[in-house]
Amino acid sequence: MIRFECDYTEGAHPRIMEALMRTNMEQTKGYGEDEHCEHARELIREKCGSADADVHFLVGGTQTNMTVIAAALRPHQGVICAESGHINVHETGAVEATGHKVLALPSADGKITAVQIKALCEEHFQDDSFEHMVQPGMVYISNPTENGTLYNKKELQAISEACKAYGIPLFLDGARLGYGLMAEGNDITLQDLAQYCDVFYIGGTKVGALFGEAVVITNNALKKDFRYYIKQKGGMLAKGRLLGIQFEELFRDDLYMEISAHADRLAMKIKKAFEEKHIPFAYDSVTNQQFPILTYEMAMTLAKKYSFSMNEAELKKGPAKVRFCTSWATKEENVEELVSDIQKL
Amino acid sequence: MIRFECDYTEGAHPRIMEALMRTNMEQTKGYGEDEHCEHARELIREKCGSADADVHFLVGGTQTNMTVIAAALRPHQGVICAESGHINVHETGAVEATGHKVLALPSADGKITAVQIKALCEEHFQDDSFEHMVQPGMVYISNPTENGTLYNKKELQAISEACKAYGIPLFLDGARLGYGLMAEGNDITLQDLAQYCDVFYIGGTKVGALFGEAVVITNNALKKDFRYYIKQKGGMLAKGRLLGIQFEELFRDDLYMEISAHADRLAMKIKKAFEEKHIPFAYDSVTNQQFPILTYEMAMTLAKKYSFSMNEAELKKGPAKVRFCTSWATKEENVEELVSDIQKL
Amino acid sequence: MIRFECDYTEGAHPRIMEALMRTNMEQTKGYGEDEHCEHARELIREKCGSADADVHFLVGGTQTNMTVIAAALRPHQGVICAESGHINVHETGAVEATGHKVLALPSADGKITAVQIKALCEEHFQDDSFEHMVQPGMVYISNPTENGTLYNKKELQAISEACKAYGIPLFLDGARLGYGLMAEGNDITLQDLAQYCDVFYIGGTKVGALFGEAVVITNNALKKDFRYYIKQKGGMLAKGRLLGIQFEELFRDDLYMEISAHADRLAMKIKKAFEEKHIPFAYDSVTNQQFPILTYEMAMTLAKKYSFSMNEAELKKGPAKVRFCTSWATKEENVEELVSDIQKL
Amino acid sequence: MIRFECDYTEGAHPRIMEALMRTNMEQTKGYGEDEHCEHARELIREKCGSADADVHFLVGGTQTNMTVIAAALRPHQGVICAESGHINVHETGAVEATGHKVLALPSADGKITAVQIKALCEEHFQDDSFEHMVQPGMVYISNPTENGTLYNKKELQAISEACKAYGIPLFLDGARLGYGLMAEGNDITLQDLAQYCDVFYIGGTKVGALFGEAVVITNNALKKDFRYYIKQKGGMLAKGRLLGIQFEELFRDDLYMEISAHADRLAMKIKKAFEEKHIPFAYDSVTNQQFPILTYEMAMTLAKKYSFSMNEAELKKGPAKVRFCTSWATKEENVEELVSDIQKL
Repeated sequence: MIRFECDYTEGAHPRIMEALMRTNMEQTKGYGEDEHCEHARELIREKCGSADADVHFLVGGTQTNMTVIAAALRPHQGVICAESGHINVHETGAVEATGHKVLALPSADGKITAVQIKALCEEHFQDDSFEHMVQPGMVYISNPTENGTLYNKKELQAISEACKAYGIPLFLDGARLGYGLMAEGNDITLQDLAQYCDVFYIGGTKVGALFGEAVVITNNALKKDFRYYIKQKGGMLAKGRLLGIQFEELFRDDLYMEISAHADRLAMKIKKAFEEKHIPFAYDSVTNQQFPILTYEMAMTLAKKYSFSMNEAELKKGPAKVRFCTSWATKEENVEELVSDIQKL
Repeated sequence: MIRFECDYTEGAHPRIMEALMRTNMEQTKGYGEDEHCEHARELIREKCGSADADVHFLVGGTQTNMTVIAAALRPHQGVICAESGHINVHETGAVEATGHKVLALPSADGKITAVQIKALCEEHFQDDSFEHMVQPGMVYISNPTENGTLYNKKELQAISEACKAYGIPLFLDGARLGYGLMAEGNDITLQDLAQYCDVFYIGGTKVGALFGEAVVITNNALKKDFRYYIKQKGGMLAKGRLLGIQFEELFRDDLYMEISAHADRLAMKIKKAFEEKHIPFAYDSVTNQQFPILTYEMAMTLAKKYSFSMNEAELKKGPAKVRFCTSWATKEENVEELVSDIQKL
Repeated sequence: MIRFECDYTEGAHPRIMEALMRTNMEQTKGYGEDEHCEHARELIREKCGSADADVHFLVGGTQTNMTVIAAALRPHQGVICAESGHINVHETGAVEATGHKVLALPSADGKITAVQIKALCEEHFQDDSFEHMVQPGMVYISNPTENGTLYNKKELQAISEACKAYGIPLFLDGARLGYGLMAEGNDITLQDLAQYCDVFYIGGTKVGALFGEAVVITNNALKKDFRYYIKQKGGMLAKGRLLGIQFEELFRDDLYMEISAHADRLAMKIKKAFEEKHIPFAYDSVTNQQFPILTYEMAMTLAKKYSFSMNEAELKKGPAKVRFCTSWATKEENVEELVSDIQKL
Repeated sequence: MIRFECDYTEGAHPRIMEALMRTNMEQTKGYGEDEHCEHARELIREKCGSADADVHFLVGGTQTNMTVIAAALRPHQGVICAESGHINVHETGAVEATGHKVLALPSADGKITAVQIKALCEEHFQDDSFEHMVQPGMVYISNPTENGTLYNKKELQAISEACKAYGIPLFLDGARLGYGLMAEGNDITLQDLAQYCDVFYIGGTKVGALFGEAVVITNNALKKDFRYYIKQKGGMLAKGRLLGIQFEELFRDDLYMEISAHADRLAMKIKKAFEEKHIPFAYDSVTNQQFPILTYEMAMTLAKKYSFSMNEAELKKGPAKVRFCTSWATKEENVEELVSDIQKL
């Protein structure tokens, strides 16, 4: 079985494993106060062009999302996001478990717009009994989205301005950030993110690391006491240096970008193969996740050799989207085999 | 200004005020453990035909909803409701503040269906990664709904069966229950509610009392330790007998039903007046809330003499729904005056 | 049975009942935005000598405590209080249910000191791993305390200064405030409270009202969005004017003070009776709660005619404290009868 | 600087690093549903003599504690623990952040007793107004305790019986379990834990792993839906196999026990060195943490070469406890050097 079901089927990039081996018997302080973490923070600040940013390392995405959101919101506030947003759908209500409503906006492709955000805020504050409703307190977007789509710089700017107009911070979930940064046509850089977001994170788990997400906070108001939140939400790794060592390796040079580009390039090969068979897509993704709409027969044929995400019950009712993912670890030969099998469909 | 903006503009029915005066200097135990509460519980059990039901008195609706829901759910569970449900829209995220997601279903008129509930549950449990999503743990319906519409017995039965099929309790918010029970065409009784719901409440605040909601729990699993929840959520009134005395009065005879019928009858007069002017309605309400769709001019004309709920920004964009409420306290002469002014529109 | 078990065994002061009767059929806006509430706010601001204070009315004490505390704290913060504090012992963990730890300090009589507060804060911030511990974020004191004891102005000032030194707000629970203000030897006024506390409340439930607590917020940072919190925590009474009407009556003249003085005077009679029998007290209370230490026999003798708080299991083990309360409603003749029965012990 | 400040200063045991390298490019399912996790579960069930136990792998201790406790408690319940318990002191209120009070019991050495637990429960349920207090809902003990002390089998049995008598589950925090199991004089086995606890965890982070805690649930009521809780609390590692691979290695043979014994043996050398200098201890620890009471001068002398936990402010006031830890990674030669320096004090 060749696995394309997600982007976390393997361990870590070999350079990361070597770094972990090399440093294994070093003695360091715990909880992220070691020199590897400090060095990794420096590297990330530099790449983001933001010398003042606070950088924190957490273990996983759900943990990061709920920690950042709970730290930013007051009890009567909620977080705006696309109805398809990870925090709204696939985190078992982690945000609600911290006491906050997710204010979901309709979205066809995983993105939301500045216009939607402004409309929601305006509607809230002009209501006579606004105190009976959850106050919008943060905007959450993911980039790439859960559907593989990307914001462009103009859209990001507009959202940032909408947030500023209503005094609410913008949080960008970059669980798959590398695959977005290196996608064809992308015009957003790490520096842009540092400029337009109040807080965002650079995903490691899905982009070369064993695990780990690097939270970058540029808004001073959100920096205060952030380590308390990490600890309280269970995200403060005792051997914090494991996170520092991994991000040191990813950002010491262009490793993070190179392995992301690799995944995107292979994803485009798969995309092209489906396109050539005139198989439609649920979303026009330019990143490492592809969502072709397959018939039950097509899905079953491919499922003999490959694992990929699908909902069999849906497929039985008619053509339905499935998901193929590439990653930093995907082998060219496996993609070629898949392409060849797509051509035979 | 004659007020039709809501059903809580006056104090309490005179008989209730007299009862409170009469008993004022009695000395009783606190926290609902007095004889008035006990008597009121007996009366309600009797009317519900449910000798085993637990009956608790709380002060207000939001408090009641969050207490019942938080008591029933496990941390990973959410509550299914119509997207227009009070808990989803107008309680400042009180349910989320107890840690739970509201699983909102689309609804044109405020009602949801057994089919929707079953579909949501089925989709949840057949998903490969259901543990990444909030588990449906309770169904919340309001009757009358926030839009004045009513469930019929068949619909209620079907919802009850859907709930039982998935092992999740059914909770009915009866903040305006009287106005539903006495509405023309209604075929649901208090006994039906006791039979088909696991827990429901009989609203007093909007139906004759100064304040107060009577929670009726028929499901044994939900009875345990309920008084702890009331206390923790701030709903245990020190002078609990105030609630008992009020519900004693409402259910000592048919007062609750009579005053509800009064409000419904006056609401139908208002409805008819709008209908005769061929003014459409947002919802086909048979209860004490009416939602005609008015032009800005119509609304402004009526607003000179009457207060009613409206969104002026919406009205400026085009015809929009407004809300007129009657209640146990509405005066016939005020309704006649309003009817006459509607006729002049 | 003559009841001395608590200070909420009767309804409300007759003047309050009359005011509720008189205003019963008035039509007003809901949720505390009516003229009675506005007037009551004005009266309270005036008595507190604080024209800028925000005043909010809530129904009960637990509700008020959890709403104020949850509104003031950030998620990683806790509230300092005496280990005997109401929020720590008798609110079913309402504060913890909003996500916050109660940081309990030892206390012999229900009071805590500025020295204790400073020591706790200093210890926290000088700890190497302070981020692993709950940050002190508010100080809660009750006055009178749960044991009937009182702070003097010097103690209050010192606590206020300690709070300011660490940048944490001071919250005073005045559930029985009247009985403190009018106690012999008390040197604290409402104006002092407005000056030294960031937020405090004037208890109505136990001092003449049917129910109701008036929260006075003088710290600007705590004023923002407070009505959202009231709504979310279930404390926003639909017929908010019921609270306004009651506090109007209590503060229209000196009613609140007069009825409090009545209760204190009667409590001193009871105290003196026990003292004359050389019966010791658990706490030296100058307010309406008295805690004599009785033998099992004494307690059983008095229990034939009077209800009062006691722990029978404790009494069986040896002399134990019991509690007698007077209130605005206590009748002189009942106290005289009790005094006479104490003399016969 | 030679580090004795904690037991997580290095990475992982070399065999674990080799296993991670060896398996790095394997493709597996995510979220702990891979074969390594399944195998590790089997190994642990076997060592615990409990074929029916559910075994889950989480990343860290705070995360594990809050997940287990939040999963077990109802909203009105709290968790009993020693006042020195990790959840009460060093987890930034993580338990309270899930809505629950920690019911702290006094403890001189980190242990609590069956007698204390029974007294607390009895006092709760015999109180007239028990619904106003947090209900005891779980007992949390750590073994070894935070002070290095150990329960013996008789004590554990008695606590287990007390819990059963009141129907509340027993949870044992085994963050340093190996160091307890292998301590001189210990008479508790993994099988005993499976028998007497409802849920416990086997710590990996501090005992040879990079990170990871293995939760063993033997009480059927606690097994249901546990994976939802892990996900909601942010503890479900995407590459779950990393946990499986590590515990496979630790329990494939006696590695976990052997490396624990190593740490205990070295700790006893340090203990003996202090004893021979007649330096007293804060607790009589038989495990890998030692708490000698040093003068400021002694502490400063040792601090030139060694890092260890201390509170300098306390030491300046007089002799105070400090903490030296050994671990699976501690080098014999470093301990010998320390011993020699202790002898020179």
